[in-house]
Amino acid sequence: MSVKGNWISFIHQLQNDICTALEVTDGKAKFFEEKWERAGGGGGITRVISNGNIFEKGGVNTSVVFGKVTDQMRRQLNMDGDSWFACGLSLVIHPLNPFVPTVHCNYRYFELYNAEENIINCWFGGGTDLTPYYLFTEDAKHFHQTYKDICDQFDKSFYPVMKKECDDYFVNHHRNSERRGIGGIFYDHQKPNEKHDIDFWFNFSKTCGYAFNDSYISIVEKRKKIVFNKQHKYWQEIRRGRYVEFNLIHDRGTLFGLKSDGRTESILMSLPPIVRFEYDYQPQPNTPEAELLNICLQPKDWV
Amino acid sequence: MSVKGNWISFIHQLQNDICTALEVTDGKAKFFEEKWERAGGGGGITRVISNGNIFEKGGVNTSVVFGKVTDQMRRQLNMDGDSWFACGLSLVIHPLNPFVPTVHCNYRYFELYNAEENIINCWFGGGTDLTPYYLFTEDAKHFHQTYKDICDQFDKSFYPVMKKECDDYFVNHHRNSERRGIGGIFYDHQKPNEKHDIDFWFNFSKTCGYAFNDSYISIVEKRKKIVFNKQHKYWQEIRRGRYVEFNLIHDRGTLFGLKSDGRTESILMSLPPIVRFEYDYQPQPNTPEAELLNICLQPKDWV
Repeated sequence: MSVKGNWISFIHQLQNDICTALEVTDGKAKFFEEKWERAGGGGGITRVISNGNIFEKGGVNTSVVFGKVTDQMRRQLNMDGDSWFACGLSLVIHPLNPFVPTVHCNYRYFELYNAEENIINCWFGGGTDLTPYYLFTEDAKHFHQTYKDICDQFDKSFYPVMKKECDDYFVNHHRNSERRGIGGIFYDHQKPNEKHDIDFWFNFSKTCGYAFNDSYISIVEKRKKIVFNKQHKYWQEIRRGRYVEFNLIHDRGTLFGLKSDGRTESILMSLPPIVRFEYDYQPQPNTPEAELLNICLQPKDWV
Repeated sequence: MSVKGNWISFIHQLQNDICTALEVTDGKAKFFEEKWERAGGGGGITRVISNGNIFEKGGVNTSVVFGKVTDQMRRQLNMDGDSWFACGLSLVIHPLNPFVPTVHCNYRYFELYNAEENIINCWFGGGTDLTPYYLFTEDAKHFHQTYKDICDQFDKSFYPVMKKECDDYFVNHHRNSERRGIGGIFYDHQKPNEKHDIDFWFNFSKTCGYAFNDSYISIVEKRKKIVFNKQHKYWQEIRRGRYVEFNLIHDRGTLFGLKSDGRTESILMSLPPIVRFEYDYQPQPNTPEAELLNICLQPKDWV
C-alpha cells in the first residue's frame, strides 16, 4: 500500500488506541464521535470527551482532506502544484485536576500533486507538548526523556533541534516570550532526502504517536488522585487563559484552519473548558505558581 | 488650544466621568488605576474594576502616545510621514448579571507629521457596540436610538452607514458570520473635508462619548436587579467565549496592539473574567438563548 494509505490506517488506529486509553484512565466519561465532511473534499472524525472523572474537556481528532490548490493557498502558503492531500491526528486534553498537565499532540502527512496527479512533494510534521499548572520536575523529565529516547533511536541529532523548535513555537510573544508550558518536540516539512527516506519519517511519526501512553498517561495515573482546592483551580484557569491566547493569537494551525473555512468546532476543541482572565495577575513570589511561571519564561533542558 | 490639546483634555474628562458613573451604579467596587509609560513615547492611564455588585470585570483606559513612523508601520499600515500622535479612550465592561449587557466604546484621534513637524494628516475614529446575553428589544432600540439621534444631529447620512460599519466589523467570520452582539455605530479615518472640518469630527466624537450614561448606564439600572441562576450564567460564559474569539482572532486594534509591543495588560483588559468553551454548544430552539443567537446571526434595524 502507498505511504498515504498506510498513514490513513495508522492515524485511525492511533485515534482508537488513544481514546480507549483515555477512557480507561478516566473511568467514567466516554468519547462522543462526530463524523464530518469537507465541502472541498474529504472529512474527519472528531471525538470529544467532557465532564469526566479526570478529563474535563478534550478532543482526539483525525482528518483526511484533499482538494485543488487555490490562489489563496498559493499566496499565503507559497504552495505550488495542482492539488493536495493532508491527513493527520490532533489532540488536546484538559484535565480537571490542576496537578495533572494538559497535553497536545499533532501528527500529519502532506502530499502535493501536479496536473497529472503525480506526487511532486510530500512531508511529515508533528510533535507534542506538555502544559502543567504545577511543576513536577520528575514528570517534565519523564515526558522529555520518552521523546528523546525515540529521537535518539532514529537520529541522535533530532532531539536537541526538535526540542528547541518546540520551545520556540509555543510562545506568547505578547507576554515577554512566556511559553505555554514545558514544551516537548516539534518538527515540520520533513521531506525525504538522501539521509532519510519517506518511510523513515513515517516510522518516526508513528513511534512518536504510539508513545502517548508512556509519555502522558503514566503522568496522569501518577497525579490524578492529588487533592486540589479552589486556589489550585483558580491558578489553572488563569494559565488556561494563556493557552487560549496562544491558540487564538499565535497558533498557525488554528488560524489557518479558521481562516480557510476549516471546521470551526473541530479546530476549537483545543480550547479549555473554563478560563479566567484577570488584569495583571501575578503569582506570589516563592510559591509553586511562581515556580511554574518562571519555567515558562525560561525554558530549560530536562534531560 | 490645538485640536490635540483639547482632545487630550476631553479624553481624560470622559474617563473620569464614566468611571464615576460606573462606580455609582455598582455601589461597591472602585476603579484601580495604573499609569504606564511607553518606551517609544507617551503612556496611558489604565483603570480597571472587578468583583463589583454589578460589574464583574471592566476597564476604562486612556492613552496618549506618539513616536517615529517605523518601517513596520509603513509596511503594515500604509503610513507615510515622519512621526505620529494618537490619543484615545477605550472601554469594555463585563457585568456579573447575564441580563445586563456587555458594552464597548472606543474614541480616538490621530495626527501624522512631516519631518518639519507640520501636520500632514489627521483623523478621528470611534464607536460603541452592545453585547447582550439575553435580548430586550426595548434596550436594543434605546441603545441604537441614542446614537441615531446624535448622528442625525450632525449629519442625517451618518447613522445608516455607521450602523452597517459596526455590523460588518464585529463579526466572528469563522462562525457563520455570527456577530458578537447587536452592534451600535462604528466610524474610522474621518478626516477634515469640504463638508466637515476637524472640529466637526471632534464634536461628533465628544457627543458620542458623553452619551455613555444615556445609552448604557440607563440599561444597567433597568436590568441590574433581575434574578439570575446558574443556567443564565452558563449561557453568558458561552457567549463570552465568542467575545474572546472575536477579540483575539479578528479585532484589528487588539492584534495590532499585541503585535506592536503595546501594553498587553491594558489591551487584554477587554477579555471577560470567566469564560466557557464547549464543543458545539447549541441553545435549545425557541428559547431566549436561541433568540439572542438568531439576532447575532442576522443583524436587524432597531430604529
